[in-house]
Amino acid sequence: MRVLGVDPGLTRCGVGVIDGSPGRPPQLVAVGVVNTPSTLELPQRLLRIEAGLTEWVNQHRPDAIAVERVFADQNVLSVIGTAQAAGLAMLVAARAGIPVHTHTPTEVKAAITGSGRAEKAQVGAMVARILKLEAPPKPADAADAVALAICHLWRGAGADRIAAAIAKQAAGRTA
Amino acid sequence: MRVLGVDPGLTRCGVGVIDGSPGRPPQLVAVGVVNTPSTLELPQRLLRIEAGLTEWVNQHRPDAIAVERVFADQNVLSVIGTAQAAGLAMLVAARAGIPVHTHTPTEVKAAITGSGRAEKAQVGAMVARILKLEAPPKPADAADAVALAICHLWRGAGADRIAAAIAKQAAGRTA
Repeated sequence: MRVLGVDPGLTRCGVGVIDGSPGRPPQLVAVGVVNTPSTLELPQRLLRIEAGLTEWVNQHRPDAIAVERVFADQNVLSVIGTAQAAGLAMLVAARAGIPVHTHTPTEVKAAITGSGRAEKAQVGAMVARILKLEAPPKPADAADAVALAICHLWRGAGADRIAAAIAKQAAGRTA
Repeated sequence: MRVLGVDPGLTRCGVGVIDGSPGRPPQLVAVGVVNTPSTLELPQRLLRIEAGLTEWVNQHRPDAIAVERVFADQNVLSVIGTAQAAGLAMLVAARAGIPVHTHTPTEVKAAITGSGRAEKAQVGAMVARILKLEAPPKPADAADAVALAICHLWRGAGADRIAAAIAKQAAGRTA
């Protein structure tokens, strides 16, 4: 099973792809970021994020997409941008008929480190250890995206086959 | 000049199209809503909103799109949904190479009624009077979308030709 994790953001969308199967350690396939410059107008930034995420989906053909759940208790202006980037990740997934799930930062931290209050550096270190990398993926958004993908693989893989069937059917209806 | 106004929302996106030219009262071309049921999963709702807005753009070929600016001082959960719907309106506009602008609810009320604190009913009544309609468009989201389009026509038409040239060039680059 292949999972694409997306840590949504207007300036940097972290993206990470892992492969996993029962009883085996997950493997890193690809990791990176979709950047948009803050000097660009918002509509153009959204267009680039959509294009960038679509490229990741087309190139790696994930079985599921995991997106960080947007929270309202952050800086409210940044919530709006994060929500828009997360919305595009969901849009791209739905268009491709790929099931998409959200996980909270606490759920991701707990899945990866055993503590929902772990610090970023600890999450990065565990991601590196789980995937047998020499160092955590950089920047932090990329490491977070990989952590999301691992979290999804461990938490939600079971429900995905049902969700995939539903998403495929729905994509067929709206196409 | 033709303007499409979008009052963004997950459950109901109000949409309204008006035509206007200097020294003449604006005319209503079309008004309606893009609905998505709350029983549908969020990714599928976003896909339907995108498809619905794209249909409005393709059918009416506006010269500019006006979207209500998302504010952070509302209910925070509803801000996230509104931001995602507004993001899709901007995405659809950018993809079509149409300049898109945002106006705050206060700006719209002030442009239409002369008071930034006007009530919804008053805005609806003025929209009906300006467009020589027998009654305000319904539902309220549709009337708000038309008000946004009128506001944009009156406030921003001047800057639009420059913005259109930039948007077209940018669309050409990303296509």
